[in-house]
Amino acid sequence: MTAEESVVATAVFAWKQNLKGAEQLFGRLDDQQLLTEVAPGKNRLIYLWGHLIAVHDAMLPLLGLGERVHPELAAIFLTGADKTVAVLPSGTELQSLWDEVNDRLLAGISSFTVADWVQKHSAVSDEDFIANPLRNRLAILLSRTSHVSYHLGQGRLAPT
Amino acid sequence: MTAEESVVATAVFAWKQNLKGAEQLFGRLDDQQLLTEVAPGKNRLIYLWGHLIAVHDAMLPLLGLGERVHPELAAIFLTGADKTVAVLPSGTELQSLWDEVNDRLLAGISSFTVADWVQKHSAVSDEDFIANPLRNRLAILLSRTSHVSYHLGQGRLAPT
Repeated sequence: MTAEESVVATAVFAWKQNLKGAEQLFGRLDDQQLLTEVAPGKNRLIYLWGHLIAVHDAMLPLLGLGERVHPELAAIFLTGADKTVAVLPSGTELQSLWDEVNDRLLAGISSFTVADWVQKHSAVSDEDFIANPLRNRLAILLSRTSHVSYHLGQGRLAPT
Repeated sequence: MTAEESVVATAVFAWKQNLKGAEQLFGRLDDQQLLTEVAPGKNRLIYLWGHLIAVHDAMLPLLGLGERVHPELAAIFLTGADKTVAVLPSGTELQSLWDEVNDRLLAGISSFTVADWVQKHSAVSDEDFIANPLRNRLAILLSRTSHVSYHLGQGRLAPT
């Protein structure tokens, strides 16, 4: 492995480690436990899990890997706050969505070369990218890795 | 900037963004607010802040940047759990420690080349590194970036 290949492989590994941590937390909970708030008055575990899926789904177009596969999740878990939507997917459905979205993402990024990673992501204009070349696809992966960890830290506080 | 330089610059930028987020949360709190638990019965904000400083201090030897500058923090914020140590540093002291440790880290990693980043970190043996070359310095930076985000997610839940 060259040094530059090693660098991107390390970033993808960190992403996978965080996904594994989230799966270990959310995937073992039953539907009742998923309704637990992480702290009094705060988001419920089910919302955090769905929120992560919706955010990862939106990474597909950002990384040039095609359209979102479940755009319907945005209204429930991105634009909609927790407890404002009456009917949420079940834990079984969320597990299936989680697997589908993350498998598709991973299949796409696994073939990325270093040159692919440093390309601009789709939400930045050509001009802005010239001004700031760090607004690249890797920046998306790293910020979403931190994002998983952010909500994992919250989810682990829940009294389940 | 070459593609490989861009890759590591992106990772360092993500690290700095997370530090900024933590500083915006912890740095604006007074000593009384720092005693708030993030959720009932959980760690207090002061502990999370000190914990991050102690973890970042320990990155110095891991990355080959010299000894820890504040090894005394480990007993308070790493091996010791919250509420088991009677006297903690004040917010002003923590801010100063935070700046000192992170400035020293950043000075060290700013000069790292791609080849430096993919070297093994100091806690892995030569044999283990041959078996898994992703146990490199960049992996430390990425995991500690996630670690900041993990506790930032918790800290933002605190009713301050």
